[in-house]
Amino acid sequence: MIGVVVIHKSMSLDGFVAGPAVSVEDPMGKGGERLHEWLFEQSSQADVDVAAAIFAEVGAVVLGRRTFEVGRPQWEDTPYPVPCFVLTHHAQLPIVEKSGTFTFVTDGAVSAVSQARAAADGRSVIVMGAETSHALLAAGLADEIQINLVPVLLGDGVRLFDDLPGPIDLERLSLIETDEATHMRFRVRTPDGAS
Amino acid sequence: MIGVVVIHKSMSLDGFVAGPAVSVEDPMGKGGERLHEWLFEQSSQADVDVAAAIFAEVGAVVLGRRTFEVGRPQWEDTPYPVPCFVLTHHAQLPIVEKSGTFTFVTDGAVSAVSQARAAADGRSVIVMGAETSHALLAAGLADEIQINLVPVLLGDGVRLFDDLPGPIDLERLSLIETDEATHMRFRVRTPDGAS
Repeated sequence: MIGVVVIHKSMSLDGFVAGPAVSVEDPMGKGGERLHEWLFEQSSQADVDVAAAIFAEVGAVVLGRRTFEVGRPQWEDTPYPVPCFVLTHHAQLPIVEKSGTFTFVTDGAVSAVSQARAAADGRSVIVMGAETSHALLAAGLADEIQINLVPVLLGDGVRLFDDLPGPIDLERLSLIETDEATHMRFRVRTPDGAS
Repeated sequence: MIGVVVIHKSMSLDGFVAGPAVSVEDPMGKGGERLHEWLFEQSSQADVDVAAAIFAEVGAVVLGRRTFEVGRPQWEDTPYPVPCFVLTHHAQLPIVEKSGTFTFVTDGAVSAVSQARAAADGRSVIVMGAETSHALLAAGLADEIQINLVPVLLGDGVRLFDDLPGPIDLERLSLIETDEATHMRFRVRTPDGAS
């Protein structure tokens, strides 16, 4: 069994995965916490099940430096209880947290994905962060995309998909509707259309 | 019965409703015809039903000058067999087509919507064109949004939702899954949350 590399993001209908002015104090940006209401405030059982399914499949995480920096004070741990690989330009010793370790990867996305795949041991590699997701998609390193589409137009913020080398064809693998989100999983088709 | 004003667009997962370089020769822009495959090449019965439902509900159309100019050579008629109101800065006499009339409205979006509502006689006003959709959303004149979400990342082109004054909260009214698209209808919630 080979795990898949999955970009996983909550996104507004206008394509934002965070509001404007993301900071350590406001990791989701202005108004961006709306995107996570399905996870916290308004969760239905179906939403809870979607979140639980991600926890059940994750074997490792690839995230960007920015996501690491703004997310860590909130998580007070790794975001999932698995090995996490931070794509960065700045070498740093690993940080051991309560339920996982942050390892800093300075030799690029291919290396980060390769290390994460090995650590995931057949389970999925979850990709966090808009810039990192973009880099992996552009390099053909992402197998799937899970979007928790939230029924809101944020108007401004951080876009998940910006200036991608397209077109990239997708196939919808699954869809779960809840009041708070439309949870969709897509497979990234290979450019030659072979898969 | 008062008809609703519905923005209706086929959109890629990365938010584009046409590819780059839209022109009369290439009205959907480079690669943008992919967004209409659900309507033409790959239609399932469910896709055909979605398209038929739009024809059944439409009573009038509001569209922008640009959509009129690039669309008309393709349609060789009005886009739907109903009165069509073109939002423009340039006054022009109405154009009578086979199954409807183009009326040119120079006194703004409120006037165009008001004229279209009257002409629609209780049926829906369908809004076409990214710029016009944006103007109506920004002015609070759109009641609903129907997105035919196409499983592709176009990478570049014309965005439906760009620089909107947000956040604008939505409610998903319906969803129809087909292999070629995820057809979603949203209601635009009023800013005070009253509806």
